[in-house]
Amino acid sequence: MSGIDLEVIYGTALELAAKAGEMIRDAFWKEKSVDTKMSAADLVTETDQAVESTVKAIISAKYPNHKFIGEETTAAAGNHCVWTDEPTWIIDPIDGTTNFVHSIPEVTFSLGFTLNKQVVIGVVYAPIKDELFTAKLNQGAFLNGKKLTVNKTKDISKAVVIMEGGSSRDVDIVDKKIKNIYAMVSNSHGVRAYGSAALNLSHIAAGRGDAYVEYGIHVWDFIAGALIAKEAGATVLDPTGSELDYMHRRVLCACTPEVANQISEKLIHLDMGFD
Amino acid sequence: MSGIDLEVIYGTALELAAKAGEMIRDAFWKEKSVDTKMSAADLVTETDQAVESTVKAIISAKYPNHKFIGEETTAAAGNHCVWTDEPTWIIDPIDGTTNFVHSIPEVTFSLGFTLNKQVVIGVVYAPIKDELFTAKLNQGAFLNGKKLTVNKTKDISKAVVIMEGGSSRDVDIVDKKIKNIYAMVSNSHGVRAYGSAALNLSHIAAGRGDAYVEYGIHVWDFIAGALIAKEAGATVLDPTGSELDYMHRRVLCACTPEVANQISEKLIHLDMGFD
Repeated sequence: MSGIDLEVIYGTALELAAKAGEMIRDAFWKEKSVDTKMSAADLVTETDQAVESTVKAIISAKYPNHKFIGEETTAAAGNHCVWTDEPTWIIDPIDGTTNFVHSIPEVTFSLGFTLNKQVVIGVVYAPIKDELFTAKLNQGAFLNGKKLTVNKTKDISKAVVIMEGGSSRDVDIVDKKIKNIYAMVSNSHGVRAYGSAALNLSHIAAGRGDAYVEYGIHVWDFIAGALIAKEAGATVLDPTGSELDYMHRRVLCACTPEVANQISEKLIHLDMGFD
Repeated sequence: MSGIDLEVIYGTALELAAKAGEMIRDAFWKEKSVDTKMSAADLVTETDQAVESTVKAIISAKYPNHKFIGEETTAAAGNHCVWTDEPTWIIDPIDGTTNFVHSIPEVTFSLGFTLNKQVVIGVVYAPIKDELFTAKLNQGAFLNGKKLTVNKTKDISKAVVIMEGGSSRDVDIVDKKIKNIYAMVSNSHGVRAYGSAALNLSHIAAGRGDAYVEYGIHVWDFIAGALIAKEAGATVLDPTGSELDYMHRRVLCACTPEVANQISEKLIHLDMGFD
């Protein structure tokens, strides 16, 4: 795909984050109309859908040949993602929808742009906190323009680990996730849960915690945050320790390879399928 | 105790919060000198101790007859608290010390003032976020001067519940806490963990979540936040559903009595002793 000017794409990404942020802020304190998807705890609102369709329309108008993968578009169609070498926008209109429904400020708009299946731009914007996390491949990660660097923690016993209960209510899945939380509480400085994958990865990038692991998330939840974390120096892998597969619904992110390895060894590795 | 002017006391409480906040902010981004207390995850820094001794000195100078209960003073002495009808300042210099050590912004100074064993003033200040939560008995709760009201959620299945792994690494205690987290993940919209009891209670007061339950905390962690939550309309109880005992190292806070009852019924009630 010649003719792609990544600075122009990056400018559009920031414009989309600003627009999405405005829509999320406008709706944040209002009563929400809530539907459920895969479980009683897997929520969607009209704002998720409105943000996604607005963003998709802007992208289509500017870049008619680009591909689009979005949480609401893909989930609504019930399809697997088709991710190709073409320039592709991968969007979560609201990551942390449960937080959004409950007016808890940890909600984000997440945008990853990929070329030849390489993530080249990641933007995570938390409009209620006005925190804009950005990264371009090989050019570092930033929070509101300030360069980010991960922590230097090398021992899990001194680490704060972010984990989530998640939205699945399948007994076997919850059981294994809780065993993993047990393993981390027992072996670390503590476990935190904020309810947004994109923000969790951004927190690790910003040194607010040492590791994050989650099973059952989708590519739109973590593709932008994964680039931001990597560009801040994080180790981002499949939880088993193998190379990250963006379509394999799981991620392990740690400030150092040592912490990543120690965590990987202590976890039950759930396989929750592919996007 | 005649001669107590609660408006003067409240003014002092705000002054102490501002001073503590300044000290916490100054130290927040610097390298910390960390010691452990009851477990490898029970942390204390020189800033906890410096804030407590500064605050204690100001109180002693202004109110030489008042009593003082502080985390570092009491924990260092290894004593049970002596809580009387006398005017008493109950202080946690840094609630969320693990967050402080890791430069995670959810750290607070917590101050409760009691008279005849009644909590009449509560102040929780999160200096990194610049969020000041305040309450006076029967006069409402406020965040940076704005009145707070809890959520109206009545069904646990629609609630976000805040819980913590805590700092104990006793296998039996961790095991029961994890079973409780399992019960809440399975039955609610989701579980969050922020790492500060004072802030967790303040979050419920502010409607950022519907309930919070914790076993193993101390009176200085939750006495101020409990007043703030109550004054915002929360139900604050012993987790068994009986009346709250501030010295009994456990608390259940919910936006409605219905959610409090539903949560109470689903928990294993740990008894982690008295302060």
